Amino acid sequence: MSASKAALQKLLARSRFVGGYGLKLVAVTDAACTIAMPFRRALERPGGTVNGPAFMAAADCAVWLIIKRHIGMEHDAVTSELNTAFLNAARRETVYCTARILKLGRRIIYGVAECHDRRGKIFTHHSVTYVRI
Amino acid sequence: MSASKAALQKLLARSRFVGGYGLKLVAVTDAACTIAMPFRRALERPGGTVNGPAFMAAADCAVWLIIKRHIGMEHDAVTSELNTAFLNAARRETVYCTARILKLGRRIIYGVAECHDRRGKIFTHHSVTYVRI
Amino acid sequence: MSASKAALQKLLARSRFVGGYGLKLVAVTDAACTIAMPFRRALERPGGTVNGPAFMAAADCAVWLIIKRHIGMEHDAVTSELNTAFLNAARRETVYCTARILKLGRRIIYGVAECHDRRGKIFTHHSVTYVRI
Amino acid sequence: MSASKAALQKLLARSRFVGGYGLKLVAVTDAACTIAMPFRRALERPGGTVNGPAFMAAADCAVWLIIKRHIGMEHDAVTSELNTAFLNAARRETVYCTARILKLGRRIIYGVAECHDRRGKIFTHHSVTYVRI
Repeated sequence: MSASKAALQKLLARSRFVGGYGLKLVAVTDAACTIAMPFRRALERPGGTVNGPAFMAAADCAVWLIIKRHIGMEHDAVTSELNTAFLNAARRETVYCTARILKLGRRIIYGVAECHDRRGKIFTHHSVTYVRI
Repeated sequence: MSASKAALQKLLARSRFVGGYGLKLVAVTDAACTIAMPFRRALERPGGTVNGPAFMAAADCAVWLIIKRHIGMEHDAVTSELNTAFLNAARRETVYCTARILKLGRRIIYGVAECHDRRGKIFTHHSVTYVRI
Repeated sequence: MSASKAALQKLLARSRFVGGYGLKLVAVTDAACTIAMPFRRALERPGGTVNGPAFMAAADCAVWLIIKRHIGMEHDAVTSELNTAFLNAARRETVYCTARILKLGRRIIYGVAECHDRRGKIFTHHSVTYVRI
Repeated sequence: MSASKAALQKLLARSRFVGGYGLKLVAVTDAACTIAMPFRRALERPGGTVNGPAFMAAADCAVWLIIKRHIGMEHDAVTSELNTAFLNAARRETVYCTARILKLGRRIIYGVAECHDRRGKIFTHHSVTYVRI
C-alpha cells in the first residue's frame, strides 16, 4: 500500500513541483521525507538569498511526498493550509527540506517541515494541513 | 513620508516579485492595497489551476506594498511569518490580492491579505507578519 | 435550517464556553456573529490585562456560533486549527469578538475573527478551521 | 545568565499560568522544557475532554519558560503569535507539554511546542512567536 522510494522519485519527477524548483528526493522512510532544492538563479532574490515561495513550495512538496508514502499512489490529498516562519536566510546553497506527519486522519492530514542546510541549520519552519480527496 | 501610488508602482516594477509573477499595482490607499497577477502558463499547475506559491508571493507582495505606503521608501521590513489558507481554486484567470494592515508597531507589522477574482470571490486568505529593519 | 439568534443564545448559555468566560451573544446575521466577554477578575493577568486563552476561547466560540448559524442545530463541527496574533492589550474592559466565515465547505469550514473594543480597536486577530462531523 | 530549573520553578509558581491551569515544571535543559498540566474538572469540556484554551495556555507557558531559560530572569518577552493544531483529544489525564526554541533572535524568538501524554502520544501542535521587550 505504502509507496516505495523509487515510486515517489518517479512521482516527483513528473509533478508540478519540479518544473520551477528542481526538487529531488533525498531520503524517505515512514518517519520522515527529505528533499533537496539545488540553488539556481531563478530562486534568487536581490541580496543573493533564496526567495520565500521556494521554501514554501519545498515544504508543501516534502509533506505531500511523505503523505503519498503513507496513503499510497492511488489516493491523494490537497493542501488546505500552510504556515511558514522565516528564521534564517539561505545564500546560494542547496536547501534541504525534511517533513514528518503528526496526524494521519481519515479526512485531515497534518504535518510539519523544516528547510535546513546540509548540516541541519534551520532556514524555515512550516506546518501544513492536507485534506484527503 | 508615506509613499505615493506612483512611487510604489516604480518600486514594484524593479522588485523581486515582478520577475516570476508579473505583479501589477492596481490601487493603493492608506487602508488597502490591491495588486493583480495576470494568468500566465508559468503559474499553472496540472489541472489548469494557479499554483500555491504564486498566491503566497502575491500576498507577501501586497502586504509589503501597503507597509511601504505607511513607513515610506526610506524604511523597510522583512517577512517573518506567512500563514495561508487555500479556499478555492483559480482557473486560468487574473488573480487579485488585497492587503490591509491590522497593526503597525515599532518592531512588528501585522497584516492580512485575500486573493480573489475581480468580483470578489475568495481564493486564499493570508496573515503576514513583517519585522522592521 | 439556519439557526435563529434565540436558538444560538440558548445554545451558548449551555455550552462549554460560558462557564469560564461568561460569553454572551450580541448580534448574529448570516454575514457575521459578535459576542461579548465582560471583564472579570478570572480573565486578568498580572498588569491588569486580559489573558491570552480568553481571547482564543472567544474567537473559537464566535466562529462556532456563526457556523451553527449556517449549518443548523442538528449538525456540528470541531476546531482543528486556531491561529492567533496578539496585537493590542485589553485592560479591564469588555472584549467583543466578531467572526465571519470565509469558506463553508462540505468537510472544512474556515473563518476569521477579531477581538476588539466597543469602538472597534483591535486586540487580537484569529483564523480558525473547523472540521464537520 | 541562563535560568536554573529551581529558578524557573519559582517563576512558574508565581506566574499567571498556574492559577487557572496548575502547570508544573517537569524538566528543563537548553534544548527543551517539559511541563505538566494535571487533569482537573475546570479543564473539562462536555464529553470529558481537555478544553482547547488549556492546551494553548500550556504551550504558551512552556515556550515562555524555555525562553527565560535562555535569556535569563532579568529579561522578558511577550507572545505575539500562537498557532495551534488540535490533533487528538485528551481524556481526564495529565497533559504534558514540551517546547523547543527554533530561533533566538535579538527581537523575535520562535519556538514550537507539543502537548502529549506520558508515552508521547500527541494531542496538539503549536508554533509560538515571542517578541523581546
